[in-house]
Amino acid sequence: MAISPLAPDAFPLLPEIDGVRFASGAAGVKYEGRNDVMLVELTAGTSVAGVFTRSATRSAPVLDCQSKLGGPSADRAAILVNSGNSNAFTGSAGEMSVETICDTVAGATGIPKSRIFSASTGVIGERLPHDKITDKVADLVSGLSPKGIEDAANAIMTTDTFAKGSSAEVLIDGRTVKISGIAKGSGMIAPDMATMLVYIFTDAKIEQPALQALLGALTDQTFNCITVDSDTSTSDSLMIAATGASGVDVTDSAGFTQALHSVMLDLAHQVVRDGEGATKFVEVKVTGAASDAEARQVGLSIANSPLVKTAIAGEDPNWGRIVMAVGKSGAQADRDRLSIKFGDVLVAENGWVSPYYSEEAGAQHMKQQNILITVDLGIGGGIGTVWTCDLTHGYISINADYRS
Amino acid sequence: MAISPLAPDAFPLLPEIDGVRFASGAAGVKYEGRNDVMLVELTAGTSVAGVFTRSATRSAPVLDCQSKLGGPSADRAAILVNSGNSNAFTGSAGEMSVETICDTVAGATGIPKSRIFSASTGVIGERLPHDKITDKVADLVSGLSPKGIEDAANAIMTTDTFAKGSSAEVLIDGRTVKISGIAKGSGMIAPDMATMLVYIFTDAKIEQPALQALLGALTDQTFNCITVDSDTSTSDSLMIAATGASGVDVTDSAGFTQALHSVMLDLAHQVVRDGEGATKFVEVKVTGAASDAEARQVGLSIANSPLVKTAIAGEDPNWGRIVMAVGKSGAQADRDRLSIKFGDVLVAENGWVSPYYSEEAGAQHMKQQNILITVDLGIGGGIGTVWTCDLTHGYISINADYRS
Repeated sequence: MAISPLAPDAFPLLPEIDGVRFASGAAGVKYEGRNDVMLVELTAGTSVAGVFTRSATRSAPVLDCQSKLGGPSADRAAILVNSGNSNAFTGSAGEMSVETICDTVAGATGIPKSRIFSASTGVIGERLPHDKITDKVADLVSGLSPKGIEDAANAIMTTDTFAKGSSAEVLIDGRTVKISGIAKGSGMIAPDMATMLVYIFTDAKIEQPALQALLGALTDQTFNCITVDSDTSTSDSLMIAATGASGVDVTDSAGFTQALHSVMLDLAHQVVRDGEGATKFVEVKVTGAASDAEARQVGLSIANSPLVKTAIAGEDPNWGRIVMAVGKSGAQADRDRLSIKFGDVLVAENGWVSPYYSEEAGAQHMKQQNILITVDLGIGGGIGTVWTCDLTHGYISINADYRS
Repeated sequence: MAISPLAPDAFPLLPEIDGVRFASGAAGVKYEGRNDVMLVELTAGTSVAGVFTRSATRSAPVLDCQSKLGGPSADRAAILVNSGNSNAFTGSAGEMSVETICDTVAGATGIPKSRIFSASTGVIGERLPHDKITDKVADLVSGLSPKGIEDAANAIMTTDTFAKGSSAEVLIDGRTVKISGIAKGSGMIAPDMATMLVYIFTDAKIEQPALQALLGALTDQTFNCITVDSDTSTSDSLMIAATGASGVDVTDSAGFTQALHSVMLDLAHQVVRDGEGATKFVEVKVTGAASDAEARQVGLSIANSPLVKTAIAGEDPNWGRIVMAVGKSGAQADRDRLSIKFGDVLVAENGWVSPYYSEEAGAQHMKQQNILITVDLGIGGGIGTVWTCDLTHGYISINADYRS
């Protein structure tokens, strides 16, 4: 698979996080000749928070993680993730696989099972060959290293064409707090409560309930504002682990919130940039809505519209399809107050094409790799931004022949 | 454009409806060398009912039709439709075009303006060159004939690859009532309140309020249960005209309701069969939902999923994607009570793949041109059926280069 034309030049250099160690290995769950399993060990006292898909058919490991969050944080913790099989819609066998994997990790590390989180990503509905994974656990444990995060980012990929990482460092009270995160995701991207698989690590000190609240708030501004294809995964999981090793308490720290927001937004954008078949990165900015919620609703209606996305693929400044998507969104809108811009080019205002608009100027913007669509509804003060990619022949090729 | 592989063999023979006359012509609104305008004249006393898109950005002719419905029915009435330009998002100029067209038809026919309905379909946001249409009105009026319905069906096409017609005759109290209808539609198909352009004519006798109520109820079971691409048009219009010429009062007639339902369902199916790029006709049947509304919600979630639609295009019995679409629908569902069938083949039950399922049997069904997906949620008694088509390279090719 060719690397996405929207990929960053290289995987970024991520700072090591004191208290976090990584290992990766090749268990052969589905893929041959590459790593497909990662193990993360978190030092004693680490606060672990997470948000997960709201799908009614969510996977066995998602349900298990949700049941474990919020327990005591005194002990060490671990996260084990495999790619190639999502262990979703696998009935009681799926639950047994999760139990077996967690038991094995607990036995090999001495970490209590209640602090062992797992995730699986890949094909839905096929039994997870968990023996292949448990056979590798001893090797993984002995290979744990503070330097393994890039390998881990590679191990969790499925249809991704590049590994995704992001980091930030922030000075609080004269001391440095570090954040490093990784993500995977490319198709089935329309996060509702969280997204794909995302793991973020920090040496900040923060109690679990405060970390959980912060994660939820920032998810709404980042991962819940991206879409590739309007399809919501059964496995979406976003977890953050705060080891506290820096000794810096970041509770209510605006600096930390801003740094974490930037890491989450960067990872969310990288997921969009690796959208299946994507050739354009699209930002949809909505202002003047009745509320922020309605602004996001309009943004997602535009970003999920196959007709808008194919027009962008064709570099066609087809603002009529934007009008259509605003109209179908269900949000309050008034045809005659609507204005639309492509980049800096004013396309339409007051319910009709602008007298200053030229098709050439619109077409020029659509030739860019980064497209900006701004819609002002002229109703109220609600604003919101969502991010997506175009819909191309590449998406059809990838998905009309993924499993068979 | 090649004719859809799902098209019927030929346009059906539609019975003439006493009291209805048709004319078509080439106004050159956008297309060259083909008819693009139709005029229908309805005899005095005809009840006219309609349902329209709920889009917040609906077109000027839609707003005009909505304002005129329900007025007195004593006079003759007329419907004028053009293809090639939807006169949507054209501001006050769009409203003026509608006024001008209706004035011209009123002048040429002697029909009061309050009984003249119009519709426009095609590109959004470009000013309608209404002079080209009004220049043709005199010719259209002199060409009115009871035989012109097939030409009319052709004149209203845009990206359609075949003209759509359907009819029924029903014996009520020993007398025959006839129904003939036409439709256009191929992309931007996710009707919310109505769909595309559909015109149905009958010689039944029925008061306007009763006809309007019946139309609304049947629309929910037919046009509101189809989707091609989840995009809702700004111009969707479905109108029915009952001339009363048969003298048969059909108010509360189960026979008439059934006949009208069959015509509406047939036309709705033809729209799906002409879905842009379609190679498969797909019926999604949902049972065991908490309510009928939730059954339709699950059906539409499956039918709108790009991952389900591309799997069908690839003839891949990828039931994991069905599970995903059930999960994201927002309807009440329980992973462990879900069962799924492809045609007669039981694929999954009790939250996992059936022990009797073979991939070969599933793949065999997916090779058919008509695909049936049945999902039982195991929750309650709610049922619903929706219809869609697959998502192919053809859809991308058509829509990445439609306007420019």
